[in-house]
Amino acid sequence: MEITSVNNPLVKDALKLHQKKYRDMFNLFIVEGYHLFEEASKFDIIKYIFTTDKSIKGDNVFYVTNQVLTKLAKTKSPQKVLCVCHKLKNKDITNKVLILAGIQDPGNLGTLLRSALAFEFNTVILDNTVDLYNDKVIRGTQGAMFYLNILEMKAVDFINEYPEYIVYGTALDGIPLEKIRIQKELAIILGNEGQGLTSKILNKTTNNITIRTNDVDSLNVGVAGSIIMHYVSRLPF
Amino acid sequence: MEITSVNNPLVKDALKLHQKKYRDMFNLFIVEGYHLFEEASKFDIIKYIFTTDKSIKGDNVFYVTNQVLTKLAKTKSPQKVLCVCHKLKNKDITNKVLILAGIQDPGNLGTLLRSALAFEFNTVILDNTVDLYNDKVIRGTQGAMFYLNILEMKAVDFINEYPEYIVYGTALDGIPLEKIRIQKELAIILGNEGQGLTSKILNKTTNNITIRTNDVDSLNVGVAGSIIMHYVSRLPF
Repeated sequence: MEITSVNNPLVKDALKLHQKKYRDMFNLFIVEGYHLFEEASKFDIIKYIFTTDKSIKGDNVFYVTNQVLTKLAKTKSPQKVLCVCHKLKNKDITNKVLILAGIQDPGNLGTLLRSALAFEFNTVILDNTVDLYNDKVIRGTQGAMFYLNILEMKAVDFINEYPEYIVYGTALDGIPLEKIRIQKELAIILGNEGQGLTSKILNKTTNNITIRTNDVDSLNVGVAGSIIMHYVSRLPF
Repeated sequence: MEITSVNNPLVKDALKLHQKKYRDMFNLFIVEGYHLFEEASKFDIIKYIFTTDKSIKGDNVFYVTNQVLTKLAKTKSPQKVLCVCHKLKNKDITNKVLILAGIQDPGNLGTLLRSALAFEFNTVILDNTVDLYNDKVIRGTQGAMFYLNILEMKAVDFINEYPEYIVYGTALDGIPLEKIRIQKELAIILGNEGQGLTSKILNKTTNNITIRTNDVDSLNVGVAGSIIMHYVSRLPF
């Protein structure tokens, strides 16, 4: 049996997940394409699979027409598979934490999650960022999000609740990256693309760091965060 | 006098610059917004300025209606100024060179140009990439492109014509970044987002490097390139 109508109730429910309010209401989100389908499969979070690929089989697989799949997808030339997934569950806070306060660009959030996993900042805290389950963020993470412990929390609350962590903010007038003291429990906070970190947060950090450049301009926040995480990952604590 | 019609010949010519073929034909491109206008002003490349801001004055300033400006702009909520600029001229090849072979995402190209300037890779060679004068690339560079020497050339031709350079490719099975030998003339080559570098290029490099990660996935190419350039910029040659 193949779903041929976009008015099919399952399809209508899935279409709602293009909006954040319904993702929050149903605690579900959509991932597109074979790579993310494979990654999601490892984590037991898939609720439904919509596909035009008859080689994919299972109780929760629904075959659809190209037209229905195209409607469900946010990419212009979608791959043949798309899944509705349960949102990710929180795990324990790890030793290395990345805190993102105000990141608004989906590409930057995706990139930072991908780098966080690569450099073993396995907990990521989102404070007033673009929605994690935005389709562009999900594509940008390339599946890294499934492996991470990602939670929503105010940066300032984290600092108050976890005093054992050394917490570095990022600021243009900070100490050079090379001067940071590495310890087991360490958090890095990155701010908004335009404004950087708020003074409220900067005043609560252990110290603030900067990456030395030729001084013409600041770096893209995804790049800056990745350079810092790479640097920390290479040092013994 | 204010231009009120999108059929005005100057406006019609500028609109053509949304297409690469006309940018190449006229050797012109468009930049949007106050920041890029200011940056472009430093380099004597502005041909026309279209604006709704009466505080901007000059022989090459044309006041336009909001409607005309919105039509000329590629951003959804454009700032009040937009310039038609002459394409950038080539300068001498510098000691540190970034070679981009096959980068297709405008955001990645913009980020890499911004990081190249920050870490003083002042020559960037484009081999089969997305167009430098694409509006998203220009926005991504934040003006960095004006300061750089950017030229189109095959990566392999660069290696043949500049044998004094030590040339590092990037490959998942490369030597660790920390093992690279720094010398005065040094080039880094980054490849396509999906495929990486071609074997044709990989076989011509002095050596190939990799950034050690937790092994789940590779890094975004903009991040990888920026980490390498940051690393090189911190070492004495």
